[in-house]
Amino acid sequence: MENNTLTATAPTTAVIITPEQLLKHWQGHRGLTRRIIEGFPEDKLFDFSIGGMRSFGALAMEMIGMAVPSVHGFVTGEWLDNAALLGDKIDTKPTTKAGLLALWDAVTDALNDYWPRITLDRFQQQIKAFNQYDGTVSSILLYVIDNEIHHRGQGYVYLRALGIEPAPFWDRP
Amino acid sequence: MENNTLTATAPTTAVIITPEQLLKHWQGHRGLTRRIIEGFPEDKLFDFSIGGMRSFGALAMEMIGMAVPSVHGFVTGEWLDNAALLGDKIDTKPTTKAGLLALWDAVTDALNDYWPRITLDRFQQQIKAFNQYDGTVSSILLYVIDNEIHHRGQGYVYLRALGIEPAPFWDRP
Repeated sequence: MENNTLTATAPTTAVIITPEQLLKHWQGHRGLTRRIIEGFPEDKLFDFSIGGMRSFGALAMEMIGMAVPSVHGFVTGEWLDNAALLGDKIDTKPTTKAGLLALWDAVTDALNDYWPRITLDRFQQQIKAFNQYDGTVSSILLYVIDNEIHHRGQGYVYLRALGIEPAPFWDRP
Repeated sequence: MENNTLTATAPTTAVIITPEQLLKHWQGHRGLTRRIIEGFPEDKLFDFSIGGMRSFGALAMEMIGMAVPSVHGFVTGEWLDNAALLGDKIDTKPTTKAGLLALWDAVTDALNDYWPRITLDRFQQQIKAFNQYDGTVSSILLYVIDNEIHHRGQGYVYLRALGIEPAPFWDRP
C-alpha cells in the first residue's frame, strides 16, 4: 500500500482540507476497501449478492472504473478508461481476487502519480466529467469517494451475511 | 428540508471546498439518508437486519448521535449529547418512524444553526472529540459524514432485501 508513504501536513492558511490531506484521506479509505475485497472468499467475490444487487467484485470494479479515469480527467480534460490508461501495465478486466487486488494496487500508484498534477485552482472549476456529468472537480471527486464508501458499506453486509467479520470502518491508517 | 435554502457560492481564493459548500454537501447526503429512513416500512425500521447487524433505525440513531454533538463540540469545545442539546425541543429517543424523522429534521435545523459558528481557522485545529478521539475538526467531521454514507449504504441492502427500491445514491439536491 502506497498510502503509508504519503505525508499530509497542516496548511499554512486556513482551509478545510488540503490536496495532500484529501489524497491521504481517500487512500486511507481505499486501503480499507482493499481489505474488504481481501475478506471475500474467492468463490463469493464475483458471485455472492443480496436482493438482486451486484457482487462486491462488480462494485469494486465500478470504483476502479471511476478512480484513475476521473483524476486523469481532472488533470488533462480527457476522459479515458482504464484500458487506455493502465492497460499496458496490468489486466484491467480481472476475474480473480488476485487480479482484482493487483489492479487495485496499480490504481493506488496511478492516483499518487496523477494527484499532484491537479493544481489548487482546478478544484473549483466547472467541468463535464466523462463528457456527461456537470460539476466542479471537487464535487465530482467527492462523488467518486462517497460512491466508494457507499458500496463498500454494502460489502460489509455481504461479508456479515457470509458470517465473516469485516475490517473495522475506523481503521484507515 | 432546510438544505434547499442553503447557498454555496464559489470561493474567492483557491480551495478544495468552502465551509458553505461542505455543509450543503452534508445536508444533501442527509436529505438522501432521510429518504432511506422513509423507505422502510414502519415494522422493519427498528427490527429488520442482516447478518446480526443493527437495524437501520439503530444506525440512523448512531448518525443522529454524532451529528449535532460533534458540530456543537467543534464550536464550543464541550461534548454534550442530544438529550442535552435538543431535549427541550424534541424527543431524542424516538421509537417510531415519524419520531425518528422529526428528530432528523430537528438535527438538520440545528446543524444549519451551529455551522456558521465554526470559524475557518478551527477546521485544522487538533481536538479530542467527545474527550476520546484525537484528530482535527476536519478529520472528525469527515469521519461523521463518511460514517453516515457507510451505514446508509447498508440500509440500501436492507431495502433491496425487503424488495424495496431505494432512492438513487446520486439524487442529493
